[in-house]
Amino acid sequence: MTKNRSLVNETIQQLENYIQQNELTIGDKLPVEKELAEIFGVGRSTLREAVKILVFSNVLEVKQGSGTFVKNGSIGEFSTGDLLRARSMIEGQAVLLATVHQSEKDLLRLKEVLFQRNHLLEAGKFSEYIEADLAFHQQIVAMSQNPFLIKWYNELLPDIKLHLSQQVLRMEDYQDNTSLHNKIYRALLEGKAEETQGMIQENIFTDEEAEIE
Amino acid sequence: MTKNRSLVNETIQQLENYIQQNELTIGDKLPVEKELAEIFGVGRSTLREAVKILVFSNVLEVKQGSGTFVKNGSIGEFSTGDLLRARSMIEGQAVLLATVHQSEKDLLRLKEVLFQRNHLLEAGKFSEYIEADLAFHQQIVAMSQNPFLIKWYNELLPDIKLHLSQQVLRMEDYQDNTSLHNKIYRALLEGKAEETQGMIQENIFTDEEAEIE
Repeated sequence: MTKNRSLVNETIQQLENYIQQNELTIGDKLPVEKELAEIFGVGRSTLREAVKILVFSNVLEVKQGSGTFVKNGSIGEFSTGDLLRARSMIEGQAVLLATVHQSEKDLLRLKEVLFQRNHLLEAGKFSEYIEADLAFHQQIVAMSQNPFLIKWYNELLPDIKLHLSQQVLRMEDYQDNTSLHNKIYRALLEGKAEETQGMIQENIFTDEEAEIE
Repeated sequence: MTKNRSLVNETIQQLENYIQQNELTIGDKLPVEKELAEIFGVGRSTLREAVKILVFSNVLEVKQGSGTFVKNGSIGEFSTGDLLRARSMIEGQAVLLATVHQSEKDLLRLKEVLFQRNHLLEAGKFSEYIEADLAFHQQIVAMSQNPFLIKWYNELLPDIKLHLSQQVLRMEDYQDNTSLHNKIYRALLEGKAEETQGMIQENIFTDEEAEIE
């Protein structure tokens, strides 16, 4: 883990502790950026990155012009299991169709997004990493060329983003699936549909089995 | 094939011939029910049934108070293959979840709908048969208890209905999958997830392979 990444992790933890120790609840306002950075003894860019992740995961809300507020970190009218099964269904089917339809241009785009994803994670730029990770999976779904799959996956994206942010938050040393993502790209490149499908499932359900009944 | 069913089939054919011979195009009005029934030499209830099927399949449109009009029989902004793959993806996943969640009440409801479906088809009540057939598949998706699958399947229903109507229309002697549907019910009852899944795919792609590239 690089220094940056570790710092952002610590700052996220400090923010959560701050909320707890000051007994802040939904709707309560946090001190301004400058003040928080001083309290935690971190740079403002590190603080900003930590706040972004907490916004993604619905713990904080930034209201333009009025400040940062505590929000309810809930996921919606469904269980995590429902979400992950819907996600895995679409990605699994998309992979089968992608290996039939994919062009060199598609695969080049996928490689670019994968590179960005891995780079951003390594640099501890969590919020941008989350966007890039989702862009990777979205690109695979786009390669299916099935308008229903594409539409439905887009509908799921906000919830997948929230869930991924919470995963990043929950683990002190976030164990990412970088090598698995590299393998997914490689298998798609080689047109190995079923092998890719297996890895897609593995990626979605890793660390989740315990909480899905 | 019962007498009723054969009569409706013939009347559908007569209606399509009538449109062709009179060179009617989109927006043109058909004669009133009484007149059409006389031209074709059929009862008004048989005619009404044939018109319903042609409305389902977008060939005709009934405007309340003004009459029956010729419509464009197209399926939408996607291919039949796209539709059937999306359908099969949802039903296939739903079956796996249904065998985990299903209650006796669920299975009883499924049996009722199946009985209706088979009975209506046998009686040549095509429009009601189509509704009951879709209700059967919708019930399986409901049994998955996954809110995403249920929502998306509901979105697909109008297009599945159109496609099924066109299938019924296209074949002079519509070969239904009644025995396959009975087997699907039986396999669900016995909790055989993968076997059911295979039959679900078989049901969707029968007679379709030739037209899906």
